Amino acid sequence: MSEFDLIHQHFTRKTQHTNLGVGDDAALISVSSNTELAISTDMLVAGTHFFPDADPYKLGWKSLAVNVSDMAAMGANPKWATLAIALPNNNSEWLSQFSTGFFACADAFNIDLIGGDTTRGPLTISIQIMGEIPTGQSIKRSGAKVDDEIWVSGNLGCAALALAHMQGKLTLPYEVFASSAKALHTPQPRVALGLALRGLANSAIDISDGLLADLGHILECSNVGANLQFSKIPHAEYLSTSLIAPISNNDNMGTSYNKTFLNMLLAGGDDYELCFTASVESHDKIIKLSETLDLTLNVIGHIRSDSGLTVHGLDNQILDFKETGFDHFA
Amino acid sequence: MSEFDLIHQHFTRKTQHTNLGVGDDAALISVSSNTELAISTDMLVAGTHFFPDADPYKLGWKSLAVNVSDMAAMGANPKWATLAIALPNNNSEWLSQFSTGFFACADAFNIDLIGGDTTRGPLTISIQIMGEIPTGQSIKRSGAKVDDEIWVSGNLGCAALALAHMQGKLTLPYEVFASSAKALHTPQPRVALGLALRGLANSAIDISDGLLADLGHILECSNVGANLQFSKIPHAEYLSTSLIAPISNNDNMGTSYNKTFLNMLLAGGDDYELCFTASVESHDKIIKLSETLDLTLNVIGHIRSDSGLTVHGLDNQILDFKETGFDHFA
Repeated sequence: MSEFDLIHQHFTRKTQHTNLGVGDDAALISVSSNTELAISTDMLVAGTHFFPDADPYKLGWKSLAVNVSDMAAMGANPKWATLAIALPNNNSEWLSQFSTGFFACADAFNIDLIGGDTTRGPLTISIQIMGEIPTGQSIKRSGAKVDDEIWVSGNLGCAALALAHMQGKLTLPYEVFASSAKALHTPQPRVALGLALRGLANSAIDISDGLLADLGHILECSNVGANLQFSKIPHAEYLSTSLIAPISNNDNMGTSYNKTFLNMLLAGGDDYELCFTASVESHDKIIKLSETLDLTLNVIGHIRSDSGLTVHGLDNQILDFKETGFDHFA
Repeated sequence: MSEFDLIHQHFTRKTQHTNLGVGDDAALISVSSNTELAISTDMLVAGTHFFPDADPYKLGWKSLAVNVSDMAAMGANPKWATLAIALPNNNSEWLSQFSTGFFACADAFNIDLIGGDTTRGPLTISIQIMGEIPTGQSIKRSGAKVDDEIWVSGNLGCAALALAHMQGKLTLPYEVFASSAKALHTPQPRVALGLALRGLANSAIDISDGLLADLGHILECSNVGANLQFSKIPHAEYLSTSLIAPISNNDNMGTSYNKTFLNMLLAGGDDYELCFTASVESHDKIIKLSETLDLTLNVIGHIRSDSGLTVHGLDNQILDFKETGFDHFA
């Protein structure tokens, strides 16, 4: 099947809110008035972002989901995406599953696939996502204010736990792996939360590289610092029960957290939850939001004026934590 | 240097018409009112689209230029781009030259780089380009009308000739190679022509895979056919003089074109000229446009109602031509 047949068979579908979709030199869209267009792109490479033998359906879902997550972090409503993909061969079955997973995510969030490119090469996926947000209402990384509460949605560490199991670093009971693997393979971008945080959150980011790394971007862009309470970082119960002695009594050092436990929550990454800051005055509204959206939202710390990021452990002692999340070239 | 330092050093620059550029979860732009946004993306893979040891400056230019060419083919005014790139290593010198070439092209066309991604992997470049066009004025592949004249800008075959030399298939004199290599390495997307063709051309496409293949897309989308006169296809004089016997007298077959010559003009590809159709009534306006833009524009054939594409050679005989241009998986 030729390149053009591939596009036609697997990636050409009716659109919901697009003037001209796949098939011409460019796609055409009309952006709503009084609206800014938010644009973000991510590239995923086999061997770097996913295992080369990754299930194509899950890969299709996740490739789009991680991009949608950037829209959530801006408070934008995702509407359009393009997909450029390099394939090592013309495997129609693989592509069929990939596109099915991709469109499952697109449909879940009412996103039109409007264009892209298919080419031959080592498996590489590049997606660009575009969404709308009323002018001036986007939630930026640079808006955090001193004394803001720092919030996190959902649970962190699930994806990292599943990955550790797949890499043979530990062994999980079947049900725990199945549950955590869902977080790894088919993350749920927090779009509804992002939309609801417009006018409420001062800053936001989605946790992809890891909590400390990503919160660190907010701190740097906002020119502030933060104090976190490690004990408040939300995680699935199976995370602590699956790790040997998440809290240990060490004769020399007193009570301390298991390093793997620390690492997974603070730097495991791949969570795709939102980390956001908001004034204390907004606290009750955010709690109410948590109920409306049926999504746990937890305060894990506060913004301070002094730069830097301090994590307090048990007994409020400062954790000496060096790992700061995934960086391709560090 | 970390991934973030790379982005900051090489790809973060002041923008001309962007609300929020590189540095947050997404970029933000405002699209002009009564305007459609045209969006196109291309992925280039080392070994498929360019030699792995390609000069990074030229690669930077060309990566963006081939995308800008899609804007030209729609009659759109290119304004924004994103760049996702997978790099095998953290080679700052290579990246510096690549970004210099990229921005040389961006500056030439007033394009803001507003976002992207840098990751580790086999060298792969994915660019998305966005441009504006007054609502309803885009030039589509589907608009060709029966009896339209088929036009081509500039000269075809230059890039193919240079490539053949680099692949050792023939040897060119130095000046000829230098001249044709410019077309291969630093093509000039025909943006000004595209803008001027709004309301004038019925259909358009940029020639990237090859004249027959790309014109073929117009024919298919417009549900028409075409007759071309091979002798009218514009080419640099050095193309015919460089090829051994572009026209030969064969005792059995009469006068015929050298196959390489045919191939380069009809299917060489990488030309990035525009192929467009317009009514006969527009002929004089287009000739005038050629003078205004100082760009050769030539009629090479006509649209007919019967499907198919017939190329007439010398003595008007029909050329039996099988090669239809580059297709990744055919």
